Amino acid sequence: KVREEVIELNAIDIAELLEELDTNNALILFRMLPKDVSAEVFANLSNENQKYIINAITDKEIQFIMDELFFDDMIDFLEEMPASVVKKIIKNTKEDERRLINQFLNYPANSAGSLMTIEYVGLKKEMTVKQAMEYIKRIGIDKETIYTCYVMDVNRKLEGIVSLRKLVVSDDDKTIEEIMDTGVIYVNTHDDQEEIAHVFKKYNFIALPVVDKEERLIGIITIDDIVDVIEEENTEDFHKMAAMEPSEEEYLETSVITLARKRIVWLMALMISAIFTGSIISKFESVLQSVVALAAFMPMLMGTGGNAGAQSATLIIRGMALDEIELSDIFKVIWKELRVSSLVGVLLSLVNFIRLYFFQHVDIRIAMVVCSTLIVVVILAKIVGGTLPIIAKTLKLDPAIMASPMITTIVDAVSLFVYFTMASRILGIA
Amino acid sequence: KVREEVIELNAIDIAELLEELDTNNALILFRMLPKDVSAEVFANLSNENQKYIINAITDKEIQFIMDELFFDDMIDFLEEMPASVVKKIIKNTKEDERRLINQFLNYPANSAGSLMTIEYVGLKKEMTVKQAMEYIKRIGIDKETIYTCYVMDVNRKLEGIVSLRKLVVSDDDKTIEEIMDTGVIYVNTHDDQEEIAHVFKKYNFIALPVVDKEERLIGIITIDDIVDVIEEENTEDFHKMAAMEPSEEEYLETSVITLARKRIVWLMALMISAIFTGSIISKFESVLQSVVALAAFMPMLMGTGGNAGAQSATLIIRGMALDEIELSDIFKVIWKELRVSSLVGVLLSLVNFIRLYFFQHVDIRIAMVVCSTLIVVVILAKIVGGTLPIIAKTLKLDPAIMASPMITTIVDAVSLFVYFTMASRILGIA
Ligand SMILES: [Mg+2]
Ligand SMILES: [Mg+2]
Ligand SMILES: [Mg+2]
Ligand SMILES: [Mg+2]
Ligand SMILES: [Mg+2]
Ligand SMILES: [Mg+2]
Ligand SMILES: [Mg+2]
Ligand SMILES: [Mg+2]
Ligand SMILES: [Mg+2]
Ligand SMILES: [Mg+2]
Ligand SMILES: [Mg+2]
Ligand SMILES: [Mg+2]
Ligand SMILES: [Mg+2]
Repeated sequence: KVREEVIELNAIDIAELLEELDTNNALILFRMLPKDVSAEVFANLSNENQKYIINAITDKEIQFIMDELFFDDMIDFLEEMPASVVKKIIKNTKEDERRLINQFLNYPANSAGSLMTIEYVGLKKEMTVKQAMEYIKRIGIDKETIYTCYVMDVNRKLEGIVSLRKLVVSDDDKTIEEIMDTGVIYVNTHDDQEEIAHVFKKYNFIALPVVDKEERLIGIITIDDIVDVIEEENTEDFHKMAAMEPSEEEYLETSVITLARKRIVWLMALMISAIFTGSIISKFESVLQSVVALAAFMPMLMGTGGNAGAQSATLIIRGMALDEIELSDIFKVIWKELRVSSLVGVLLSLVNFIRLYFFQHVDIRIAMVVCSTLIVVVILAKIVGGTLPIIAKTLKLDPAIMASPMITTIVDAVSLFVYFTMASRILGIA
Repeated sequence: KVREEVIELNAIDIAELLEELDTNNALILFRMLPKDVSAEVFANLSNENQKYIINAITDKEIQFIMDELFFDDMIDFLEEMPASVVKKIIKNTKEDERRLINQFLNYPANSAGSLMTIEYVGLKKEMTVKQAMEYIKRIGIDKETIYTCYVMDVNRKLEGIVSLRKLVVSDDDKTIEEIMDTGVIYVNTHDDQEEIAHVFKKYNFIALPVVDKEERLIGIITIDDIVDVIEEENTEDFHKMAAMEPSEEEYLETSVITLARKRIVWLMALMISAIFTGSIISKFESVLQSVVALAAFMPMLMGTGGNAGAQSATLIIRGMALDEIELSDIFKVIWKELRVSSLVGVLLSLVNFIRLYFFQHVDIRIAMVVCSTLIVVVILAKIVGGTLPIIAKTLKLDPAIMASPMITTIVDAVSLFVYFTMASRILGIA
């Protein structure tokens, strides 16, 4: 009876349910599943559960699941398994398939090759609509998608695409050549997944063909996998922007050591940079010594500068990630940030002056030092924040590293230098 | 001849091309387009160009475009137009359609209602596969998608769905009732777009039905619009995490005033908080006065603390956005951050001590103050960074506001307090 209730569920919900059971109960329930459901459930399990199941079931059962899995999901699974398991699985496959598996395992991570699958509908341009529909009726059930069909010549060179919609609404005796779309947009096996996601977003595709250097069709990428890529790329940016090495593992599943390792490199680098900032203070120790009250405004100046710069950096990094800002826009960005920061800087400074002079009764010269420093710092911070991500991209670095932590570290140093220079001038301290 | 080259292009590329021309040339080229292409091009133009075109073409041409646009795109367009333009467009529509337009204009922003369209394929369960296919052949060309079809009773209550794939591979004389899937996953007109995006991501859908309170089918949402939602929601998080009010406009298209307005509120709030941090320094002015060298380590302590906290906050905020971390995980997070931060804090502190004592020959007691403060600060920062986003969510606030700027502001104050307290104890200063 449990079984009956479970198989009513969507395969993805079943997988979720299995994840919540302990591995042994998960295995028991997994073996109760109807054959055709089990592969889809398997594809949606965590690596640990997949490994556990593979080690517990017979070679024949493994063979069945591997046959049922879409090729991209099988490759993803094999990539995560230890060599011994991979060997065990591959030993029963035919020569041809083994070669294909090895080919796919070798595509670089985050390339089109690592995302594509091979279960597409291939048509010939001489076919009629009727023949094509009969062919799809026969083979359609095993395909990842049948909604876009790919027309190829004898060398598998891509000649056109035809949507199932077009097939359905066209007359039976038309040929594929008459109705196919020849302006095919495609990507190459080694193209980067971020670029591919842009193509999907721009053209609203649900599938995209992948060709090799000879323009032969190798596989297709489907939108569901691209949605995952989009979130992955965003996660990467979030992590980099917080000065961490990006991780694809879930937080709660990541070990303490791994988490520490991903964080310490940048923390260390930024800490050492901050020591230079400290040396600016040391250089101005005499100024601070004579007017120790100056110290009280340091956190506000550094903090506001850092925040102002981080705002600009974030807008620019995000704009570049969405292809809205190009390298050539750098002067537009500087001009815009100059105006925004002057406006913002003056306003903040005004509020600060009122508070310092009228409410806290701070010496007017100190209030002036603080407030004019604030304007300069906000302007500099926003220009640094706006331009560094663009400069990073020009240097083929990921703009995302030029976010808050990097900007605040730079701005901290700049703020203090400006502050103490202003102070020694305005207050007349050597 | 220009025309011939242009109409070879994808409608989205044509729209992109028009955006690069001045409005007048864009209009000329737009009017050259074949009728059926023009609506799709129109849907992909910027608001300015849409407005310009609408004001320049005849009522009949407007009518044609409105008829060709998918309903969701028409609503999006009407939402952006001034009332006078909307009136002009609506006046020619039939009573029924006008009511529907008003209904759709009233769905809240970011709800399912604001994303759905009405061009879906509706079937009856008594139909045979053959009848359904003939019906789709007749009406399929005007639908947003024909790949998922919706089975409804006489009251439009949703009874099941059937994919075009299932229709194509099934025998002609089967009824829809026999092949339809009744465990339909759907959303309600007022559900939030972020939740809807989660449903798409989880189940790999390309379309999702939207029903009203009586479970009657009102419209469908398609994956291409959800891809845009995903990027929008990510942009919102990036902006909030950098202490800005989120913007949906492109940076280069946003006015200086608007940019300044979106930034100043948080900058002001954080600036005022930083003033409290300053008062901590004032409170310990005597400590600083006696050992002015302490000031040099303030940027390093505040900076490292801020960065350490921002790392944790980002991981937790992102984990919650991806539904990987729940409110109930708060103790797991604290325990994990406690271990990670101890490890990281001790390492950073060690490096710092070596540098200070062996290379810079700083007084050993000062080195000890700095290094033990660093450990405490890193641990506190990571716990604050890890828990505040979760607490925010518990209070129904957006966790994204508890990112770097907020964390660094809090950590700045905490760092200084710990630092000077340690200093006055270890150095024995009153
Ligand atoms: Mg892969
Ligand atoms: Mg799109
Ligand atoms: Mg796939
Ligand atoms: Mg997948
Ligand atoms: Mg990337
Ligand atoms: Mg990236
Ligand atoms: Mg800071
Ligand atoms: Mg809308
Ligand atoms: Mg998915
Ligand atoms: Mg749409
Ligand atoms: Mg759309
Ligand atoms: Mg939202
Ligand atoms: Mg959100």
